[in-house]
Amino acid sequence: MAAERLVVIGGDAAGMSAASQARRLKGPEELEIVAFERSCFTSYSACGIPYWVGGDVPEHEDLIARTPEEHRARGIDLRMRTEVTELDVAGRRVRARDLESGADAWTSYDKLVITTGARPVRPALPGIDAPGVHGVHTIDDGGALLDSLAAAGGRSAVVVGGGYIGIEMAEALLSLNFEVTLLTRGAEPMHSLDPDMGRLVTRAMQESGIRVVTGAEVTKVLTAESGRVRAVATDSAEYPADVVVLGLGVAPNTELARAAGLPLGESGGLLTDTSMRVRGHQDIWAGGDCVEVLDLVSGRRRHIALGTHANKHGQVIGSNAGGGYATFPGAVGTAVTKVCETEIARTGLLEREAREEGLQYVTATIESTNTAGYYPGAASMTVKMLAERRSGRLLGVQIVGREGAAKRIDVAAVALTARMTVDQLVALDLGYAPPFSPVWDPILVAARRAVAAVRG
Amino acid sequence: MAAERLVVIGGDAAGMSAASQARRLKGPEELEIVAFERSCFTSYSACGIPYWVGGDVPEHEDLIARTPEEHRARGIDLRMRTEVTELDVAGRRVRARDLESGADAWTSYDKLVITTGARPVRPALPGIDAPGVHGVHTIDDGGALLDSLAAAGGRSAVVVGGGYIGIEMAEALLSLNFEVTLLTRGAEPMHSLDPDMGRLVTRAMQESGIRVVTGAEVTKVLTAESGRVRAVATDSAEYPADVVVLGLGVAPNTELARAAGLPLGESGGLLTDTSMRVRGHQDIWAGGDCVEVLDLVSGRRRHIALGTHANKHGQVIGSNAGGGYATFPGAVGTAVTKVCETEIARTGLLEREAREEGLQYVTATIESTNTAGYYPGAASMTVKMLAERRSGRLLGVQIVGREGAAKRIDVAAVALTARMTVDQLVALDLGYAPPFSPVWDPILVAARRAVAAVRG
Repeated sequence: MAAERLVVIGGDAAGMSAASQARRLKGPEELEIVAFERSCFTSYSACGIPYWVGGDVPEHEDLIARTPEEHRARGIDLRMRTEVTELDVAGRRVRARDLESGADAWTSYDKLVITTGARPVRPALPGIDAPGVHGVHTIDDGGALLDSLAAAGGRSAVVVGGGYIGIEMAEALLSLNFEVTLLTRGAEPMHSLDPDMGRLVTRAMQESGIRVVTGAEVTKVLTAESGRVRAVATDSAEYPADVVVLGLGVAPNTELARAAGLPLGESGGLLTDTSMRVRGHQDIWAGGDCVEVLDLVSGRRRHIALGTHANKHGQVIGSNAGGGYATFPGAVGTAVTKVCETEIARTGLLEREAREEGLQYVTATIESTNTAGYYPGAASMTVKMLAERRSGRLLGVQIVGREGAAKRIDVAAVALTARMTVDQLVALDLGYAPPFSPVWDPILVAARRAVAAVRG
Repeated sequence: MAAERLVVIGGDAAGMSAASQARRLKGPEELEIVAFERSCFTSYSACGIPYWVGGDVPEHEDLIARTPEEHRARGIDLRMRTEVTELDVAGRRVRARDLESGADAWTSYDKLVITTGARPVRPALPGIDAPGVHGVHTIDDGGALLDSLAAAGGRSAVVVGGGYIGIEMAEALLSLNFEVTLLTRGAEPMHSLDPDMGRLVTRAMQESGIRVVTGAEVTKVLTAESGRVRAVATDSAEYPADVVVLGLGVAPNTELARAAGLPLGESGGLLTDTSMRVRGHQDIWAGGDCVEVLDLVSGRRRHIALGTHANKHGQVIGSNAGGGYATFPGAVGTAVTKVCETEIARTGLLEREAREEGLQYVTATIESTNTAGYYPGAASMTVKMLAERRSGRLLGVQIVGREGAAKRIDVAAVALTARMTVDQLVALDLGYAPPFSPVWDPILVAARRAVAAVRG
């Protein structure tokens, strides 16, 4: 019997995890694995790019978990700089173009994995393609930005967008001694937090020396005679800029899948079942930033572009495509980041998300400390908790604080997964010792307050 | 109608939390609250004593959450330096002695709260009462030790006992520039970890400059002509000591309850129901270090002396004694500490505890890092996980590592509470960003390994 052929479109976290896991389960005599990757890199940490640009991580090679050569050594036929341009589902084949030679060919598959990732949002504003305006989605983007920073005539940097990438890049540019202005459309940055918690992030950024402009709708990018960016304009003001970084979010990169007639969800991500199989297609799996995932709290499907999900998807796909069995039951919406010394975390639903689901809720916001109050270096932490009215079911938690704040969100993530009530939360046996927590962990203090709010 | 009287025996965390919570629910016209406390202090953090002795916390006052005056201001009739010497359950009264005047009197109660705490284990060894030999159970103990350290003729300190207090005191003495020898009876310190994990603690202590002697059964304390300690002797050796600190654990302080015929468990702790009411006694509650708590993983009752439980018990007792309703469902055995830069955590069952319960299990031990491997300062972390054979139910986790290691145990504590399997653990949506975690959190890496071990 000839080997089956598994084709993987996209050689980053999800795709190469899938390929590696499938290879672990089946040798080359049983399963041929062909992976197409458009860029020069495989299996790298895109989340690490801000830390590389900011100088915390010395080389882009540090971000690469596994090189093309390492993948090939494990029996994966990896075609770099090769872009899949067409997917023929009925014919079970993909058309791929070698980006160096321009040569074009069809490759047939028995099983297909679609891990085409996400595309950064880039609005069609005048001047947006000027030199000095950069996204930070790929290693190539990061390299171009570093070159641009070195070539910048001055020290003014403007970051457009107040989400994760925006605030991480603001920190990176600040640590490179740029004067940083962050423009965000909303009333506060971090649209993934409620505005009252976002305000704490604004304050922290301002205290770190980042200028934060809220309610700022960028209308155009202004250029100098050289053609290079010189400022960013909004309706009401101009912000001088020797360099501009765009952090406006990402959208699922699913043109190929759409053209092939595969099912997409509301946000344009591929729709899969729990085994990460594309709905209605026995031998096609999809994962990573190009799919929608089930939000276990709301029951909705959402597009959540996050390396940790991509890696899990890859494992699950590889297990299933390799003849094993695994599932990805869904996510609860956990995300963490930091800006300078301030840690930021969320999981579950925000107020506006709860309202969208028709959920009635109470909120509890408390201030506590990361360690016992008397322990040296005790620093404040704000925890906001949402619980369903009447039932007391935990709906979401947001945290803004100093060291030790962000990863406390994991307690809430597990509790959401287990559909616990805030009453159950209060009784949790969390680790306590003065260097690590007050005798009532901040999560428990918030839960106590939420219990009181539910009752009354 | 005359006010009911609530009597509280013991004015530390559990007792005064109970009194305060009852007072919140009922005013003095409805409920008179009388609390007896033997020492000069109320509501203090005993867990903070090592950090006060070591100089991290400047004053013992910093450890006091609420003073006698503050309690009195909230309408609690607090009798300091007053010891309850007899409990007459049939007559609903307690006999208390003023330790200053020696005066003795009976006080009747309608409702009683027993929060008599724990007593440090102090074996009857020759010389153990010599000057220079110290426990660190109370603020008075800490003060005496500080005086003794100041008066010590040399810089040799011996810590007897390798549990939480032992290793925390070893760190404290080291930071005061003593040459520290830690004697522990077991094959490794930290009997609350499996020996393979305890070995990592030994190594960390040795690297920090603490001399660790295992298998050391102390036989006597040797004194100088002055009467002060000069060495600690085991069967096979003598260890010079200018000061000795005992950290041999604690036992429930339940003589009063035993004499009154109240029900005690295997370890001598009071037996209560989920509302913290003493079994068989409608109007008597008990909590804190003098009770046994339900271990939710094994179903057994255990004595776990920990401030965080004491505070929860107090809240629950105060709610119930104040006419409300609250429960303490049990604990999963979470504990965290650190020695110098090394963080230590456990929750659930150890191997020997699982065996004692007749549970068959697999183990998975992995090494990972606290942050993304490429992030500056990434430090190693070892996670050991126990899962039940066949069912894959999580049974316990132990962690030894650097910054960010200890509080990761909370994820496992919540998962144990929810009785999750290691398969469910693998899918958890934990916070990921390079400064906080590798893309697979160490807990998830251990869970993946455990899943594989369960499958066999």
